[in-house]
Amino acid sequence: MTSQNTPNSPIRVTVWGENVHDRRDEKVRAVYPEGMHEAIAAGLREQLGADVVVRTATLDQPAHGLSDDVLAATDVLTWWGHTAHEQVSDEVVEKVHQRVLNGMGLLVLHSAHYSKIFKRLMGTSCSLRWREVGEREIVWTVNPGHPIAAGVPTPFIVPQQEMYGEYFDIPQPDELIFISSYSGGEVFRGGCTFTRGWGKIFYFSPGHETYPVYFQPEIRRVIANGVRWVYNPQGVRAEPYPAANSPTGWFE
Amino acid sequence: MTSQNTPNSPIRVTVWGENVHDRRDEKVRAVYPEGMHEAIAAGLREQLGADVVVRTATLDQPAHGLSDDVLAATDVLTWWGHTAHEQVSDEVVEKVHQRVLNGMGLLVLHSAHYSKIFKRLMGTSCSLRWREVGEREIVWTVNPGHPIAAGVPTPFIVPQQEMYGEYFDIPQPDELIFISSYSGGEVFRGGCTFTRGWGKIFYFSPGHETYPVYFQPEIRRVIANGVRWVYNPQGVRAEPYPAANSPTGWFE
Amino acid sequence: MTSQNTPNSPIRVTVWGENVHDRRDEKVRAVYPEGMHEAIAAGLREQLGADVVVRTATLDQPAHGLSDDVLAATDVLTWWGHTAHEQVSDEVVEKVHQRVLNGMGLLVLHSAHYSKIFKRLMGTSCSLRWREVGEREIVWTVNPGHPIAAGVPTPFIVPQQEMYGEYFDIPQPDELIFISSYSGGEVFRGGCTFTRGWGKIFYFSPGHETYPVYFQPEIRRVIANGVRWVYNPQGVRAEPYPAANSPTGWFE
Amino acid sequence: MTSQNTPNSPIRVTVWGENVHDRRDEKVRAVYPEGMHEAIAAGLREQLGADVVVRTATLDQPAHGLSDDVLAATDVLTWWGHTAHEQVSDEVVEKVHQRVLNGMGLLVLHSAHYSKIFKRLMGTSCSLRWREVGEREIVWTVNPGHPIAAGVPTPFIVPQQEMYGEYFDIPQPDELIFISSYSGGEVFRGGCTFTRGWGKIFYFSPGHETYPVYFQPEIRRVIANGVRWVYNPQGVRAEPYPAANSPTGWFE
Repeated sequence: MTSQNTPNSPIRVTVWGENVHDRRDEKVRAVYPEGMHEAIAAGLREQLGADVVVRTATLDQPAHGLSDDVLAATDVLTWWGHTAHEQVSDEVVEKVHQRVLNGMGLLVLHSAHYSKIFKRLMGTSCSLRWREVGEREIVWTVNPGHPIAAGVPTPFIVPQQEMYGEYFDIPQPDELIFISSYSGGEVFRGGCTFTRGWGKIFYFSPGHETYPVYFQPEIRRVIANGVRWVYNPQGVRAEPYPAANSPTGWFE
Repeated sequence: MTSQNTPNSPIRVTVWGENVHDRRDEKVRAVYPEGMHEAIAAGLREQLGADVVVRTATLDQPAHGLSDDVLAATDVLTWWGHTAHEQVSDEVVEKVHQRVLNGMGLLVLHSAHYSKIFKRLMGTSCSLRWREVGEREIVWTVNPGHPIAAGVPTPFIVPQQEMYGEYFDIPQPDELIFISSYSGGEVFRGGCTFTRGWGKIFYFSPGHETYPVYFQPEIRRVIANGVRWVYNPQGVRAEPYPAANSPTGWFE
Repeated sequence: MTSQNTPNSPIRVTVWGENVHDRRDEKVRAVYPEGMHEAIAAGLREQLGADVVVRTATLDQPAHGLSDDVLAATDVLTWWGHTAHEQVSDEVVEKVHQRVLNGMGLLVLHSAHYSKIFKRLMGTSCSLRWREVGEREIVWTVNPGHPIAAGVPTPFIVPQQEMYGEYFDIPQPDELIFISSYSGGEVFRGGCTFTRGWGKIFYFSPGHETYPVYFQPEIRRVIANGVRWVYNPQGVRAEPYPAANSPTGWFE
Repeated sequence: MTSQNTPNSPIRVTVWGENVHDRRDEKVRAVYPEGMHEAIAAGLREQLGADVVVRTATLDQPAHGLSDDVLAATDVLTWWGHTAHEQVSDEVVEKVHQRVLNGMGLLVLHSAHYSKIFKRLMGTSCSLRWREVGEREIVWTVNPGHPIAAGVPTPFIVPQQEMYGEYFDIPQPDELIFISSYSGGEVFRGGCTFTRGWGKIFYFSPGHETYPVYFQPEIRRVIANGVRWVYNPQGVRAEPYPAANSPTGWFE
């Protein structure tokens, strides 16, 4: 393992945003005038202060803003996408996938449940039920001692949200942290952790383009906790883990 | 392991009921005139036919109906209690605990979340939030390929139920099968499996003394599936698993 | 869900074998004169009798023997490959993947840890350490009440095996059933279960082309138990699970 | 939750040692002249420096050194016992159990697998195979991105150890971090995490009274990592989690 970060140096976070709705849809611009990625990045800066350095990257940039240099300087990547999953190049997805396996933390937000990178890491369809009527979501903690739940009231309420409902076709999470209910009666495993290779992954469902979810303090706290939790202070492996022919006694 | 059952012989189920409300409370007698245990037993006979032989046992019987002979002839035990958990003798609890570790299946129903046997097997307080206003419960499947979910519609509705809400203080289940929501907005991990020693355990939350829950077809199906799933066709160990001093090469 | 099998009808198993070593390598032919797939199929017929109907399929056949018709008539697929993973067409892998998510059981054997289908289902590299010196493997049960461990002595010994050692880059298994040790001191999580969508998966590591592992009674028992366990008697979904826009009250 | 510690203040660790072998057995005194608890405490001070304040407590002290005041000032408790498990008072065990459920971290070391507190938290027999011939143990990491594995070489070797072998009768761990093999061929799930209530638990098997295991750098690193991981910076709940009658809308 080659540590690419210095102990106690800030966590280097890249907030990736699709930034399509955000530019072309007036309703979204009214809520997120600088784009959702900027709201998420601002939340991290607000919550984590000097413990992070945050940059953003978007779909329309070269390599979607995720050049080799940017990835090599990213300890934690957050991902929000919705309408343009198919426009993300397979080459970038492959590189992000490999870096997660090598130890980069990944936060997958809301509609990114259907992103190429999440489906590839999960191995399932990641399908779910949905409905967009602006109903109330109540978020319940079911793992109260978990670092991602630290300082998060239970329950907390998101006044208006898109409904995401079960069955959510993901592998059984390593840890289930939050379950949501909706006014319509549905439930959703909305806060889940996974480990893949050296990398840790946190999926968190609240957060829609037409509601100001990413300005809500509880949501910002969860996302900040998630960044801390997926971060590996040991750094990220420089090379993929190989299938190694290992002669008897190689470890002596 | 001494198999105490013959392959393909019926599953020997003992349905344990506290039978206190059932006798003294007119409202409960109106719903369950023969006691809740008889309703649960009838459901199993209805669903599983010749694949089971079902007996019942109650708190007021000698050894609460769970003599050594009865336990030795029990492959699967179901447990419902509520108001008299403390009246269950520690000696019987110890024997049931040991037999679960030896491979007997256990179904823990509704308010038995607070039974001595469940708390001892879990190692936690097993506390939860509750409210009794007869509200609607919606039961969602989150593990659709699991045998306990077979033939169970998702969601299904229990028209009137006591609310059980998170946080439910149990260890993370090995498998989470069902999550419930309630009219009041709460959620609950109401269908959970655990393995302890050679024994399998299924906790299922729907089922209250003042509502006819145990006559509902979906509930009966889940409980019957649960009996099949916790049953170990290999039989139950005759002796506890020992801490064995094992000389080098003992297994050659 | 469209059940494509009748209750109590036999489990329809397709044993897929790469069948490359088996034809061209004399050393392998000496051990498996009819190919490894035939030895695996014979083991299933021996262990499960009238409870299964077993067919085989190999890489060199059209669609690798896995036409739409064959897949539609397969409840459980077992997969062995080693030297020709890359020759398996992506189209077939995509169809197998979808059918697993729809509920078909999958057994992944030995070097198939590196097959396209397993890597796609896991989302990780599935890399491991290895060494081929014909050393002794000891297989230990760590989940003795699990149906896959039924009737399997613990430990049991595979006299000569390829060494597979940790770190094995897979997601944390839903259930860990067997751990192996090797003469050289390595350990391996050699018996693991996973659920993906409606489908159940069992990975089992013993089984190499130059040792008669698939003729060993304990191995045959584990594989037969695995087939029973991954089998879903509810049948396989006819269609992928969709992302469904679900109006309020759709389930009433 | 009442935080009983100030953010960024040191982790308050109490190292509990049975201290029976250590005083009466010359062979043990030769290895651990100040007792095993002092070696463990010294390791924590060495590894964690100003991030911890470490005290020790032993069986022979009043309340076994675990008065209400000491427990109330303990964020993380480590536990080593072997020959005198039965002499630990049930009252102290009850208080430790409750404090773990309230959020105190717990490290359970080696033969403390059979302590009252561990058996009570697990709900199982916690039995295992054992052999004391001073054989070599090899410790393999199977969760390389986990904080408890940070900076720990894989594998690392304990030159002389008591053998602990499967089946180890514990619930399936939430996370399996280390698996050991022994010269005799046995394997053991020697590094396991569990969550119970608000509390986190780490069991780590290496560490015997007649071998200098607790002076070995890799072991000290694992134990220090374990202390950090089980520590909850949110503090420990002041009161047990209650079963709360919760009227409709209580959370509004």
